[in-house]
Amino acid sequence: MTSRTDLLSALSGIVGERYVLTTAEDTAPYATDWKRSTTGVPACVVRPASTAQVAAIVRLCGDSGISIVPQGGNTGLAAGAIPDTTGSQVVLSLNRMQTIRSLDPIGMTVEVEAGAILQTVREKAASMDRMLPIAIAAEGSATVGGVIATNAGGLNVLRYGMTRDITLGLEVVLADGSVSNGLRHLRKDNAGYDWKQWFIGSEGTLGIVTAAVLRLVSVPRYSVTALLSVSSLEAAISLFGHAQQEIGEALSAFELISANSLDLVSRHAHLKPPITAGDWFILLEGASSLSGLRDAAEGVLAGGFESGWVIDGVVAESEAQARQLWALREHVTEAEARDGPSLKHDISVSLTHLREFLDDAEAALVDAAPGAGLNIFGHLGDGNLHYNVLFRPDHDQKAINRIVHDAVIKHGGSISAEHGLGQYRVDEWLRLAPESDLRLASTLKTALDPSGLLNPGKILPFSLLHTKAIRGVN
Amino acid sequence: MTSRTDLLSALSGIVGERYVLTTAEDTAPYATDWKRSTTGVPACVVRPASTAQVAAIVRLCGDSGISIVPQGGNTGLAAGAIPDTTGSQVVLSLNRMQTIRSLDPIGMTVEVEAGAILQTVREKAASMDRMLPIAIAAEGSATVGGVIATNAGGLNVLRYGMTRDITLGLEVVLADGSVSNGLRHLRKDNAGYDWKQWFIGSEGTLGIVTAAVLRLVSVPRYSVTALLSVSSLEAAISLFGHAQQEIGEALSAFELISANSLDLVSRHAHLKPPITAGDWFILLEGASSLSGLRDAAEGVLAGGFESGWVIDGVVAESEAQARQLWALREHVTEAEARDGPSLKHDISVSLTHLREFLDDAEAALVDAAPGAGLNIFGHLGDGNLHYNVLFRPDHDQKAINRIVHDAVIKHGGSISAEHGLGQYRVDEWLRLAPESDLRLASTLKTALDPSGLLNPGKILPFSLLHTKAIRGVN
Repeated sequence: MTSRTDLLSALSGIVGERYVLTTAEDTAPYATDWKRSTTGVPACVVRPASTAQVAAIVRLCGDSGISIVPQGGNTGLAAGAIPDTTGSQVVLSLNRMQTIRSLDPIGMTVEVEAGAILQTVREKAASMDRMLPIAIAAEGSATVGGVIATNAGGLNVLRYGMTRDITLGLEVVLADGSVSNGLRHLRKDNAGYDWKQWFIGSEGTLGIVTAAVLRLVSVPRYSVTALLSVSSLEAAISLFGHAQQEIGEALSAFELISANSLDLVSRHAHLKPPITAGDWFILLEGASSLSGLRDAAEGVLAGGFESGWVIDGVVAESEAQARQLWALREHVTEAEARDGPSLKHDISVSLTHLREFLDDAEAALVDAAPGAGLNIFGHLGDGNLHYNVLFRPDHDQKAINRIVHDAVIKHGGSISAEHGLGQYRVDEWLRLAPESDLRLASTLKTALDPSGLLNPGKILPFSLLHTKAIRGVN
Repeated sequence: MTSRTDLLSALSGIVGERYVLTTAEDTAPYATDWKRSTTGVPACVVRPASTAQVAAIVRLCGDSGISIVPQGGNTGLAAGAIPDTTGSQVVLSLNRMQTIRSLDPIGMTVEVEAGAILQTVREKAASMDRMLPIAIAAEGSATVGGVIATNAGGLNVLRYGMTRDITLGLEVVLADGSVSNGLRHLRKDNAGYDWKQWFIGSEGTLGIVTAAVLRLVSVPRYSVTALLSVSSLEAAISLFGHAQQEIGEALSAFELISANSLDLVSRHAHLKPPITAGDWFILLEGASSLSGLRDAAEGVLAGGFESGWVIDGVVAESEAQARQLWALREHVTEAEARDGPSLKHDISVSLTHLREFLDDAEAALVDAAPGAGLNIFGHLGDGNLHYNVLFRPDHDQKAINRIVHDAVIKHGGSISAEHGLGQYRVDEWLRLAPESDLRLASTLKTALDPSGLLNPGKILPFSLLHTKAIRGVN
């Protein structure tokens, strides 16, 4: 084991002294998560400028038995990029590696370094009449490496899939400091195991993504946005089926927002929906290069009225109106924060079981946390809801988390749909995951990071790795 | 090591005597591949009826040190499901496990056993007005497990992605005989490592897929098919960019067929294109729920004429005409077989480098195999070509394979786009893959199948696994 002075000196030797941050002031932006709910104590923050420097840092830390916490834009919603409080973990920030290496409008790919800001890449693509189809709220600071490490979802998963589906190639620094270059610009490649899949969504616990090739798509020529209020969740689900039939793959978003969520927006952001309320609202978006999109959207609305699913609805007449409708959805999270403390759950359940899940969870919460409020909204089209509980000081927060997650598992769902496990959900995952999932996870972690120095505590805590799971496959 | 008699007796104890095939006559259909170019000698063929039986077989073989070759519909194009000729490997056929466990038209998923025939599942989905978007020529005999094991591509990858993108959940029997159940019906699930990704496309070398959950999509209401002839590959690529702009995500196929390919079809299947020939033909298909599709397709044609890319073209006026146009494409493989022996290459190259690849490969072939013919066709939209060489008896077949694959690698492509490595391409992959790819592959194989009993010789030969690659990460 190296002394701290030796470590800092060796790191400075790799990246230059000014890129090794050590004071509390300098490291603060890297030590607290975006939601300001978790603060760690890094040994230091190191900011490499190249893949070779990342590799050298990993080798150095490996030789000294020092843990590394990779970090991108630090916009994660589960504190997966925040170190623990021991002061022994090195935060490796990719934020100097922002080069867009190439953008190929014919092959429809972009090759970027991991620290590139999502919005910058999207703008570069747009300037060449192409689109990078990853749309998340934090695009102004989130990095490519971060969205890959968490397999980020977002608003357009319904149409384009998760980040995994957009990722064509990766360059990864492995735990032994070697570099695996899989930066292929290919839509189809079945030669050998597709190892990039192992690293996508692995939260920096198996290797450090230093660059990626992402898929681009053509920019849709037409778009349509509508806000509807519906009488029930069943009506919302029926309307979704109808919309899929009418709009097909051009349906790019189908967001569910509870009446309670829009009450919060009305009270704290002073924005009101321009239509009569129901129990739920739907924000529907379509995008296509084909004419006939707007007709199809109006057909959805008409069919919804006829079937009695829709109470009221409006189709945006202009880009400005569409933005106003989206603003209602986009202010939900901020309004929730202004209202008071909340427990966030990032869950997915098949649409077929969503009603039963909501009933079970709410019934249990009424008993365990009387008076708690609910702020439920999310990507209904993906079965992904943000099920947030507005608790009171006397409520047992851990019990609330357990109730929501137990109901999710009971109905075949996932407790981590698009934000990652990070620090927030790792205990719950370990509590609820099937034994076989844990064994397989432990097998891969042990194979790729035998010393457990890459983002320890995330996904598989070190103790589990070296004790409980070392039966079975291993 | 068990005697053969003991083995057969123990297998019979698991599945019943009639499902352990031992005579040359009974095992013949399982011992030769679909192309009739590779014949193995199985110890026996065992046909389990359930996941529990598969697990018991794997445990039995594991205890006895006997290798298992999993097999689905035996329609693979690279002999990945054919045993070697030692007579020591057990073929485990999934063809009795055909149950469609559930089809959920609301949640848009289907859960099936691995031996289910693709066409049966597609028809079941169609009967409920849903579509399983995996379209391959062998759908009448290919199984769900087989398309997952090879991460099959096909005609609609452009729009819906590879089998990987359609697979939501897997049930896998691991090398130790334990069962990992990941049959989740979720579009989004980021809880822990997404281990199903490891097994998709792994050709039965890491575990045996026994069941899967696949994603369904809505059935497009409109479709359009057009055949065009173009002046050059550059024109074809420009037309593809134009079609993406005009038709967007509704573009479901963009097939390239060389004039030589259609000559073969004309000579051997007596089908002729109804338009004036160019060097290349394009078969374009769009499918959408939105009106405006046909207008957009005609716009592509008109734009193509204006730009000088298109020589001639026709848009099908009826379903029957569309089928006639597709028949030209579908007869290419059969016409090639009737013409004489050929060497098939299943390659992908970025569209940006496709011209240089074709030039390099052809120049080298003219030198090394003078008089060889070329039959080039495939999925241009994915950069995936079937680059088949019609060789003469005096040509060096191994040299031809090397020339084509060297040119592929030179231009950043893949030597295995959608058919798998199987037995045909594994040597070439080992020759050409980056050292880091081999090391990572070896790491996973060693971790999941330490005794190397699952489909040995495919992807990573046993010798490599236990010698060469055991440096580095391991």
